[in-house]
Amino acid sequence: MQNKKKWVKNQQPIRYNNQKQVIDLMRSGSQSCSDIAKATGLSNTAAENIVDEMVEMGVLVKGPITDYGKLGRRPIKYKLNGELGVVVSVDLTDRDLLICISNMNRQILFRSEVKNIIMITEQILNDIVEIIKEGLQKPGISDKPLLCICFAIPGYFNKDTGEFLLANRIENCREVNIKSLFSEIFGCDILLQKDIISGVIGEMQFGVLSTLQAKNALFMHFDINIASAFIFDGKMYEGDHGFAGETGFFMPNMSDPAKGLGIYVSLTAIFINIIEKIKKEKLSHPLAGKEVLEFDEVKLLFLSGDETVCSVVKLTAKKLALHFLNINYLLDITHVVLDGRIVELGEKFLEYVNTYLKKYNQGMSEVKVQYSDLMNRAITLGSISSAVDSQIDKILRARN
Amino acid sequence: MQNKKKWVKNQQPIRYNNQKQVIDLMRSGSQSCSDIAKATGLSNTAAENIVDEMVEMGVLVKGPITDYGKLGRRPIKYKLNGELGVVVSVDLTDRDLLICISNMNRQILFRSEVKNIIMITEQILNDIVEIIKEGLQKPGISDKPLLCICFAIPGYFNKDTGEFLLANRIENCREVNIKSLFSEIFGCDILLQKDIISGVIGEMQFGVLSTLQAKNALFMHFDINIASAFIFDGKMYEGDHGFAGETGFFMPNMSDPAKGLGIYVSLTAIFINIIEKIKKEKLSHPLAGKEVLEFDEVKLLFLSGDETVCSVVKLTAKKLALHFLNINYLLDITHVVLDGRIVELGEKFLEYVNTYLKKYNQGMSEVKVQYSDLMNRAITLGSISSAVDSQIDKILRARN
Repeated sequence: MQNKKKWVKNQQPIRYNNQKQVIDLMRSGSQSCSDIAKATGLSNTAAENIVDEMVEMGVLVKGPITDYGKLGRRPIKYKLNGELGVVVSVDLTDRDLLICISNMNRQILFRSEVKNIIMITEQILNDIVEIIKEGLQKPGISDKPLLCICFAIPGYFNKDTGEFLLANRIENCREVNIKSLFSEIFGCDILLQKDIISGVIGEMQFGVLSTLQAKNALFMHFDINIASAFIFDGKMYEGDHGFAGETGFFMPNMSDPAKGLGIYVSLTAIFINIIEKIKKEKLSHPLAGKEVLEFDEVKLLFLSGDETVCSVVKLTAKKLALHFLNINYLLDITHVVLDGRIVELGEKFLEYVNTYLKKYNQGMSEVKVQYSDLMNRAITLGSISSAVDSQIDKILRARN
Repeated sequence: MQNKKKWVKNQQPIRYNNQKQVIDLMRSGSQSCSDIAKATGLSNTAAENIVDEMVEMGVLVKGPITDYGKLGRRPIKYKLNGELGVVVSVDLTDRDLLICISNMNRQILFRSEVKNIIMITEQILNDIVEIIKEGLQKPGISDKPLLCICFAIPGYFNKDTGEFLLANRIENCREVNIKSLFSEIFGCDILLQKDIISGVIGEMQFGVLSTLQAKNALFMHFDINIASAFIFDGKMYEGDHGFAGETGFFMPNMSDPAKGLGIYVSLTAIFINIIEKIKKEKLSHPLAGKEVLEFDEVKLLFLSGDETVCSVVKLTAKKLALHFLNINYLLDITHVVLDGRIVELGEKFLEYVNTYLKKYNQGMSEVKVQYSDLMNRAITLGSISSAVDSQIDKILRARN
């Protein structure tokens, strides 16, 4: 009797794990049972059983027959059931807040932005509610149930209660509970995810990290603020409390512990240093007299070779390179992926960084820095993915 | 036929993994089959089969009957077969090189030191050969085969070839090949392990890390040099090339990238700063006029409250605290274990560190620093353990 119970207990997670493995495969497109058997090492029969189970659950559906196998046989391919419902991702990371609605195949059906937001106030949250409501009425969306809203949050919070611990850009963050607020209005699951974690998930599933197959990597979001995330042994690392990667607090100068890395390395740092340099050196410069800079004007001046802008950006590249070397000394990580609007500074910025990486490397392994190829949308793609995964997982768990 | 092959292929690792799990249990003392069944979730029959297999291989033996079970039945306990052979550990980390010979139960049967060595020359390596030869002739050792010598190395090397990449304390390190040198003389397996990795293994198996059961931890060896190692998700982390933890290169001041952390934080740094402070401030001080300091004299002055020594140590504690906070910001690690002779500075030094941890923490989770309780022998215990494990693994693999 005891043995019997154990058998049942052990078999369940295996079935669940096999199902999850098949779902993971579906990310790269529709799959036939023999594709699945080949990729997972399962027997054809086992793969067919798993697919049948998940078709019955409504998680998978037959895909279109696109290619013809050997001997003219048409292999039936399966894909995630896009019609199960829709999910919403709300990316609160940067100045332009991005709201997307996607189906379960991670195809974006609706997108809208709230532009140039510094503080996320109650009013802004209400605007987001209205945008989601508007999106949910669009054709192709309105006929499907809303399953989940995933927020990519620039800050720290208690995952279970949704209470904020630290979130500088959210007004009265300790009194705001996005989780209960949106749950009440939309009656669906609400997922909060640290923005940088969404970013890594996006990058691992769709971006350069998925092609690199790097064992260990540093992912850095470099925009008005900076944040980092680490991949160790192929898995996302979150730390003791999910707070890993708080690069903004990191003190790059022991002699001045009040200044975090973000004060030296961020778009904000670049803007402030340009303004100060112009003032201090009394330069006649296209940006002279401005107290607030726009990214686009700085970018254009950088790309056209403006001396003042280039020298400030170069200094930032130097500090960024020193930070990457430090990370490499500590963690022996050679792969770095940069995301955020810094990507728009192109190869020229990467060359600066590489020059300093070479100059200061003390004979350790080379650090390879590259840009995210997700056009600054790793975070949104990651939160859509997390929302979809959480819903599939919910269905699988309920049936296992 | 294909299925049959798969079955065999999959069953082998399971049997091997079960055997390894039983071996791991034996670390904490001898175990009966029902102890093993309880701890592993295996059935009694399965546990008995595994134990029988390993007794037959010579890996396990019946231990002494020490306690009486319920109803007067005497449970037969098993333990690792200490008589299988002996292993040697050679700890090259600090100034006093330590050579130990242990049986397979990790009991040290012989120990000898080569004192106060700065550079490890060919002569020193020959001295080590002679010490090992001497030890191998001792009663209780001479009747057992030598299975493995494990070196804990302060530096980097290619694990397979044994070639050094960087090892400042080993003379002509690029021409020295410890692996082939000792292999030729002793005809046994030679294992090279980065010293700090040996330290973490010792700490995880015997020390505070075994009792803490921390998911994530930083282990720092703080002696004439410093080195670190990380535990992530309960496992040792080695990085892309096994180079993780190169804290000595870490640049704690971006404005002065030539200076590594070891220049600010190490016993060497403390010694140099004391000498400089006495010179600069022209102090009449017990250490005045000395160009080289001994750890013991510095320690006594620190513990007796000498103002000059205390102020230098305090500054070191501050820098160490800032480094731990940085590690916490990056990696959300709250547990830090300190090893090396710094441990001898006792609670007073920890209080200094804690004061600065509190002072500079920007509202993130608290960092808890504690000393290793292995009396500065984590590295030796870890390399003995690695040597023993490698030999048991060799036997298991040969039979699976």
